[in-house]
Amino acid sequence: MSVTAPAGFAAAGVVAGLKSTGRPDVAVVVNRGPLKVGAAVFTSNRAKANPILWSRQAIQDGTVEAIVLNSGGANCFTGAFGFQTTHQTAEKAAALLNVSPGDVLVCSTGLIGTGDEVFRGKILAGTEAAIAALSDDGGDHAARAIMTTDTVPKTAVFAGDGWAIGAMAKGAGMLAPGLATMLVVITTDAVLSVDEADAHLRAATRVSFDRLDSDGCMSTNDQVTLMASGASGVTPGADAFRAALVEVCTSLARQLQADAEGASHDITIRVVGAASEDDAVEVGRSVARNNLFKAAIFGNDPNWGRVLAAIGTTQAAFDPYAVDVSFNGVRLCSAGAPDRPREEVDLTPRATDVLIDLKEGDAAATIFTNDLTHDYVHENSAYSS
Amino acid sequence: MSVTAPAGFAAAGVVAGLKSTGRPDVAVVVNRGPLKVGAAVFTSNRAKANPILWSRQAIQDGTVEAIVLNSGGANCFTGAFGFQTTHQTAEKAAALLNVSPGDVLVCSTGLIGTGDEVFRGKILAGTEAAIAALSDDGGDHAARAIMTTDTVPKTAVFAGDGWAIGAMAKGAGMLAPGLATMLVVITTDAVLSVDEADAHLRAATRVSFDRLDSDGCMSTNDQVTLMASGASGVTPGADAFRAALVEVCTSLARQLQADAEGASHDITIRVVGAASEDDAVEVGRSVARNNLFKAAIFGNDPNWGRVLAAIGTTQAAFDPYAVDVSFNGVRLCSAGAPDRPREEVDLTPRATDVLIDLKEGDAAATIFTNDLTHDYVHENSAYSS
Repeated sequence: MSVTAPAGFAAAGVVAGLKSTGRPDVAVVVNRGPLKVGAAVFTSNRAKANPILWSRQAIQDGTVEAIVLNSGGANCFTGAFGFQTTHQTAEKAAALLNVSPGDVLVCSTGLIGTGDEVFRGKILAGTEAAIAALSDDGGDHAARAIMTTDTVPKTAVFAGDGWAIGAMAKGAGMLAPGLATMLVVITTDAVLSVDEADAHLRAATRVSFDRLDSDGCMSTNDQVTLMASGASGVTPGADAFRAALVEVCTSLARQLQADAEGASHDITIRVVGAASEDDAVEVGRSVARNNLFKAAIFGNDPNWGRVLAAIGTTQAAFDPYAVDVSFNGVRLCSAGAPDRPREEVDLTPRATDVLIDLKEGDAAATIFTNDLTHDYVHENSAYSS
Repeated sequence: MSVTAPAGFAAAGVVAGLKSTGRPDVAVVVNRGPLKVGAAVFTSNRAKANPILWSRQAIQDGTVEAIVLNSGGANCFTGAFGFQTTHQTAEKAAALLNVSPGDVLVCSTGLIGTGDEVFRGKILAGTEAAIAALSDDGGDHAARAIMTTDTVPKTAVFAGDGWAIGAMAKGAGMLAPGLATMLVVITTDAVLSVDEADAHLRAATRVSFDRLDSDGCMSTNDQVTLMASGASGVTPGADAFRAALVEVCTSLARQLQADAEGASHDITIRVVGAASEDDAVEVGRSVARNNLFKAAIFGNDPNWGRVLAAIGTTQAAFDPYAVDVSFNGVRLCSAGAPDRPREEVDLTPRATDVLIDLKEGDAAATIFTNDLTHDYVHENSAYSS
């Protein structure tokens, strides 16, 4: 059901011919109301795609009627022509839906530099076709239409007490944080104000998508959008709603991790004993981005030395000769010296846990990443994306 | 000839049994004087190996009589026992050479966590054997004894007017900056003061080793040492000496790049039009560390979109819609939009040039890196190192 699980939403996914595979590549999600509340977070990459430039402006008033998403082309670094294409896409959808173009967001994903006249013709026709195909149970079609190198669609649903959250995500490569890290649309029929939607979304992404760092590469196109219809008539408690949103976002983040391009291990790096949460995040991220560590995990080698070498590049408070490092529950390094034999660690399962105790304080954070594999190199060298 | 090319130096490389392959693994370089000037730069990794902790202190007085180097074990995170091993190594060499232990530097390279009693016994015996084997033309033996995954020894010689510089380096993985990025010993028979040696070394490493970023990973053990004997009796001009030192260091850095683990392309990233040299370095490094860019080059794909996405993660002054990007002389992106067709670029040669014009100012910098290949993943997953 994905984004059409909550009341008040319609969605569709259609084939517009943007993907050479002939698979669905344009999705539309429409908020039928009564509320038209929207909030969004965007990539913090300073090189932003045209849809990001457009959507950042369109979200300012907190009103979102619809969102158009396409795979098969990023429309990034495509010049003024590319921006006009995004603008025309919003205008086309707005005219057909009888709403203001400024209340239509646009998201694109695919190869940077793709956004010529052929692209424009296809996305405009695809937008029209998707709006014609809108359905109250079209969420799954929409989820399929935003896939790029994803092998499976990613969706999540939370059933509250009289209200619900639905969501879809795409993302398999170029996964690294910067507020958002992928294309995500989240819908809810809960009654939310614009400020509440914005605050909840920022809080939830901070501890979910922003903790996913599969390959250290930050996209130019990433956007997470929350749309609230109020169609349930229910105003959930703020804590309950936020917890549900965190659950949905974390589920999607873990699905993105599990489908990361070429990965053979899903690595959970838990940093505890940090002086601050920022320190814990910095340490976790530095390990997650260390190619030697990532290659070692691919080789089922619990190479704790590479973990310490990565920690040493951070500014976090730590004494290299106090740190403990454990792999899958076996402490291999204690106080900066060898502890248990590395042979005790079995890294053959896909799920890999690395626990780092900095022995400095009480703060903690968890970063989700993947290993560096032959298949990652193959997928990202054999095809332009 | 490497480090024994200048007058006043003796060197040796011997088999101490630290490497399972039975190849040479302990080297000693001795300065016969009359000057015993030394300068060194060290890894900026906060997780430092025991030899780094030792050598940082020993270099304080600017006097270096000898340096002992071993491969086959990093002696990093090996506890107090490991530090005592380094200390004993310096004491052993000092006793045999009849100098002060505080004037003997130690360098180690190999697997982090290696430094137990067996290691201690072998390095002490190896130090004794190497000192017994010291020779005025032992430079090449020393260069071979510091190799780890290097496939070839790296040496460089500069013949000045009555003076010379000789050098050896090891490094093939974990190549990333932090002042030093590998084990390097540079010798000269020029007459230099301690302050001159230090200033020249820092200036030369800043624009050579510090611009090499093969895989973004910073070692715990890296050290670049300059030893001056004054045996030529010649005091070269400061500019001439510095230029020669830059030439030697750049030659070694390029040799390290050419032998980087598993690499199939040597990538030269030249950033011009930057507002400052720092900006140029930051931009070049961000591209050099982007796994998607590196994998694309492996696949002979001139993926300029990934270059711009990497630039966008920096804090450098730039307008994403002003930047030009060229691959091997073909401008693929002009003012943030597609320019020449990517089919015009031939990336099959190993030497790859990426030119980024930020259009902000007159500053420039060049970063040397490598591609991300199947062989890189294989070498760093199949073996602990």
